[in-house]
Amino acid sequence: MKLHSINLQKINIKDAFWSKHVKLVKDVIIPYQWEVMNDLIPDAEPSHCLENFAIAAGRKEGEFYGAVFQDTDIAKWLEAVGFTLAAYDDPQLEKTADEVIGLIAEAQQKDGYLDTYFIIKEPDKRWCNLCEGHELYTAGHMMEAAVAYYQGTGKRKFLDVVQKLADLICDVFGTEEGKIHGYPGHQEVELGLIKLYYITGERKYLEQAKYFIDARGQGENYFLQEMARPGYQQIFPEFTNYQPEYSQSDKPVREQDVAEGHAVRAVYMYSAMADLAYEYQDEELMEACERLWNNIVQKQMYITGGIGASGIMERFTVDYDLPNDYNYSESCASIGLAMFGIRMANITRDASYIDVVERALYNTVLAGIALDGKSFFYVNPLEVWPDSCLERTSKEHVKPVRQKWFGVACCPPNIARTLASVGQYIYSVGENELYVNLFISNETEIELKAGKVNVKIETRFPFENQVCIKVENVAEDGMTLALRIPDYAKKYQVHVNGALTSCKVEKGYALIPAEKDSELKVNFEAPARFVRANPNVRADCGKAALVKGPLVYCLEEIDNGKNLSALYIDTTQAINEIKSDLFGGITELAVQGKRMEEAAWEEEELYGEHPVVLSDTILKAVPYAYWNNRGIGEMTVWLKELI
Amino acid sequence: MKLHSINLQKINIKDAFWSKHVKLVKDVIIPYQWEVMNDLIPDAEPSHCLENFAIAAGRKEGEFYGAVFQDTDIAKWLEAVGFTLAAYDDPQLEKTADEVIGLIAEAQQKDGYLDTYFIIKEPDKRWCNLCEGHELYTAGHMMEAAVAYYQGTGKRKFLDVVQKLADLICDVFGTEEGKIHGYPGHQEVELGLIKLYYITGERKYLEQAKYFIDARGQGENYFLQEMARPGYQQIFPEFTNYQPEYSQSDKPVREQDVAEGHAVRAVYMYSAMADLAYEYQDEELMEACERLWNNIVQKQMYITGGIGASGIMERFTVDYDLPNDYNYSESCASIGLAMFGIRMANITRDASYIDVVERALYNTVLAGIALDGKSFFYVNPLEVWPDSCLERTSKEHVKPVRQKWFGVACCPPNIARTLASVGQYIYSVGENELYVNLFISNETEIELKAGKVNVKIETRFPFENQVCIKVENVAEDGMTLALRIPDYAKKYQVHVNGALTSCKVEKGYALIPAEKDSELKVNFEAPARFVRANPNVRADCGKAALVKGPLVYCLEEIDNGKNLSALYIDTTQAINEIKSDLFGGITELAVQGKRMEEAAWEEEELYGEHPVVLSDTILKAVPYAYWNNRGIGEMTVWLKELI
Repeated sequence: MKLHSINLQKINIKDAFWSKHVKLVKDVIIPYQWEVMNDLIPDAEPSHCLENFAIAAGRKEGEFYGAVFQDTDIAKWLEAVGFTLAAYDDPQLEKTADEVIGLIAEAQQKDGYLDTYFIIKEPDKRWCNLCEGHELYTAGHMMEAAVAYYQGTGKRKFLDVVQKLADLICDVFGTEEGKIHGYPGHQEVELGLIKLYYITGERKYLEQAKYFIDARGQGENYFLQEMARPGYQQIFPEFTNYQPEYSQSDKPVREQDVAEGHAVRAVYMYSAMADLAYEYQDEELMEACERLWNNIVQKQMYITGGIGASGIMERFTVDYDLPNDYNYSESCASIGLAMFGIRMANITRDASYIDVVERALYNTVLAGIALDGKSFFYVNPLEVWPDSCLERTSKEHVKPVRQKWFGVACCPPNIARTLASVGQYIYSVGENELYVNLFISNETEIELKAGKVNVKIETRFPFENQVCIKVENVAEDGMTLALRIPDYAKKYQVHVNGALTSCKVEKGYALIPAEKDSELKVNFEAPARFVRANPNVRADCGKAALVKGPLVYCLEEIDNGKNLSALYIDTTQAINEIKSDLFGGITELAVQGKRMEEAAWEEEELYGEHPVVLSDTILKAVPYAYWNNRGIGEMTVWLKELI
Repeated sequence: MKLHSINLQKINIKDAFWSKHVKLVKDVIIPYQWEVMNDLIPDAEPSHCLENFAIAAGRKEGEFYGAVFQDTDIAKWLEAVGFTLAAYDDPQLEKTADEVIGLIAEAQQKDGYLDTYFIIKEPDKRWCNLCEGHELYTAGHMMEAAVAYYQGTGKRKFLDVVQKLADLICDVFGTEEGKIHGYPGHQEVELGLIKLYYITGERKYLEQAKYFIDARGQGENYFLQEMARPGYQQIFPEFTNYQPEYSQSDKPVREQDVAEGHAVRAVYMYSAMADLAYEYQDEELMEACERLWNNIVQKQMYITGGIGASGIMERFTVDYDLPNDYNYSESCASIGLAMFGIRMANITRDASYIDVVERALYNTVLAGIALDGKSFFYVNPLEVWPDSCLERTSKEHVKPVRQKWFGVACCPPNIARTLASVGQYIYSVGENELYVNLFISNETEIELKAGKVNVKIETRFPFENQVCIKVENVAEDGMTLALRIPDYAKKYQVHVNGALTSCKVEKGYALIPAEKDSELKVNFEAPARFVRANPNVRADCGKAALVKGPLVYCLEEIDNGKNLSALYIDTTQAINEIKSDLFGGITELAVQGKRMEEAAWEEEELYGEHPVVLSDTILKAVPYAYWNNRGIGEMTVWLKELI
């Protein structure tokens, strides 16, 4: 049996590390994004998102503005609102959301169609450009949002809207004669349909998701057929000479071995493949998921959990190609990697998937948002020299400071919905087993087969490595607690009700029987350490990174001076862990290093034969997740090693 | 008095290093490019260049095809033909060229206008889009070609064509009322006009060049005005949100301090500025040239003489930003740098300019063409990992193998005309002084004020560092030979008629009086050496390059195995210079180094804590100019130093 997520309505997160991020969603991001979508933030990129719906609903006159997938901004906002209303009462927010849902319902066409770009601009061109039109992508986000809103509030209206839309999609797409035999240019609708199946029990939605996955990459490429039709209108200039592997449609999904193409498209698709592999007990599909996962995490993933190395086309490149200073590593791609990983963990009960989920969440996803919640990274380099990040150059995609908003604004609301639903990553629930994946303080009530259990986790992880887990009201037959042993944990110990207990370990989880009211204390060591990359990673060869537990560290100019490329790290020396009040309380790291002196060099000398002169210096590192929260400056994760 | 170039008609180059490149022009490149321009090479990019002229001339029906500046391919070809016919008799080639010139003359409009794109496609849109239309750029190349053809053959027909075109340009552009107050979007016409002035003595051409340089960047940007006009038709999608600094038109040229924007546009303009600074004795303009030169060579130039670091927009970025693996460094930009440098040297009689000219010619320019003359690099990286150079990624502009031709084919014919005219870089001629800039074996006859002198240089430079210079028939008053002392030369000695002679040195030239028939022997040492970059060059910090004389060396996979990033160089060890038959005879370099072993790493391990294990290895280096002449493989110029 597959494990499943907990009911977010019952969870109360109060965590030394996560709370400051999680509460940003309700306090800052949701209100801020609301203003953005209403075009009330003067110096942010214009959105026009709600205006588009008002025009489509006939409430206003005007032109569509924005990307073809502009509607997804409000969808992801509503999804975050749904998750938030699951955790908190907020009648004002709920009222606003209900009004928006009313507007969306009004914009929906009689037959269920819903996409303001095509409703306003090209009503005759529905489904004619699946490759670029993003109608199915937008539909998927609407479905995910409606499910979250229904789960958070119990209100059906939005769910009814998206069911009508899903019904239309089921009628329009499929293998049957008279239906369109296509599939989405940007995968996402599959995930929406599957969630809709889970919440409504309507099996046709699951079947429809399976159709989209099965049809993909079969026979002659659907998108190339579309493009060859008379009257095809190209939307994105960069789609000229389209390569089907960009959208993972070059071959059937079950034959795919290597993660390729657009990274977000890829991981959204792999997530849906994992769901379907379980639902249909499709071993071939599951093997494809495992191959693709392994390719990513063994060959194409940054140490920060970033994926999709190329700045052009936001895509995977080739094994071991992980440049640090001009990479893409979109925030959304790491979110999708976490989505894929939790699904694989829930199916396989293998904690190694969570090691990667944790890496993505604690590093790239958190780095995507400022500590004040008001600015965002879309692109997540591991090495930044701000002076060189110029518009209209090869580094134009690398922003050395977080941005208030984006023309294509997928990342900020995606981060919001992820933070608002982080509870789904903490636990995975079996029949009578509770898997504890992440060490985040919270209280919750969990429904097992034998009845409800109250669970409380207390910890100061990742800065301390003791986790206290209390379970109360366990039913008579008892239950099993499965506690993740992270890949970096050393000297892992479990005390049950005060007594040191040896426990069975399966696939990275310590399995501990619990009865009635039990208190488990988990201790492990996770000292700061030097990590190296496989020498085939050309960009990192000869370098080391500082890592402590799930946190990858970085050096910033503010702590280490200008020109971080002139620094060397001495990996023979101890790493000092220093408690600091920075960023609301962190552990800083300090290590002995050297700096290459430039004193011998005249300013006008570009090349010369001056000997290398090194001076001693202490390198100071902070978590990568928090970089660029103290102004603009250089940053690097990887440091040259003294050899 | 400014120094000037020699008459190429009189020079006969027979050089151990250069002859194999120079003779490619006549034997391979000119015939090959002729086939390309006639679309006879099956798997090269289509050209259609001559077809466009046939259509414009009314000989054929059809559509224009190619870039707006497609005409420049035939212009640069004719320029190379002109230089070649100066050196060799080739009646068949001359006949073909005369026919082409006849075709061009037929395509020219009655009023002198000549640009097949606008003649065929947009006859009403002449001069409406100076920013993107490239009419003046094309005109400039036609003028340079016609001058070279006239000098090579004595035939005036092509010169008459371009004079008519130049006259039209003089009538159309200027400060006077009724004239267009614009200037070229891609500088080049200035150089053509100045050459036309030199050959015809018509001062209005010089004045017109001065107008274009003086008008540039004054007041409201002309290109932004153009774009704001109703009916403006954008040609290049990447010109949306045009930034005037891209074409060095954001401020008056005399106020420019830093090389910025498109690198080829920049150095072509600086070359014209240098000519004008001399002709008008314009100190302010000369100071701007010096500032811009210094900015390039002190802050923005690769060790190979490559310039223009950004792959997007082929442009300069910022001081010290010199990435090695995704840079641009267009072949044409290094040609332009050499053009700028020789002009500055001729004005200032300062050999340091030639050090840079030599760096560009011996490294980037030569690397731009295969040893068989049939394939070309447009982009010149200093580090290549072929697997990662994928289409539609951030490295899509980096080609790991030379290409047969290009859609935008500026580089191959530019290399051809440069190789065909390398004689102009060897010598600079004063009133009674002969400057020897480059050490290339040749025989020539040079006109000094006091009469003709026969000069012969014999050397095996750069593989040996002895240069024998014979002058014969020196007039009674004698002459001065000014022999360049390269920046890398050690223990420089001059023997005059067998006797060691101490000589006056001025700005890097050893000044030696010569009488009647003299034989000078120059000896110096130029041992292979380790060169480092200023530590502010982030990309090279902690690395060293191998250099011998003017040649920058590189490591190739074929000599050093896969993954050159795993190599370290031991700069405390001696560099062995080894005679080799590779590439028709070179000096190879070998140095002690280390290789980071990957034996400890499992294939599925991407990150880990395995200790660094180094093994001894001998690093073998070949001249960068010759890389990728032995099949596809990794290449790197800069190597990590063992520290």
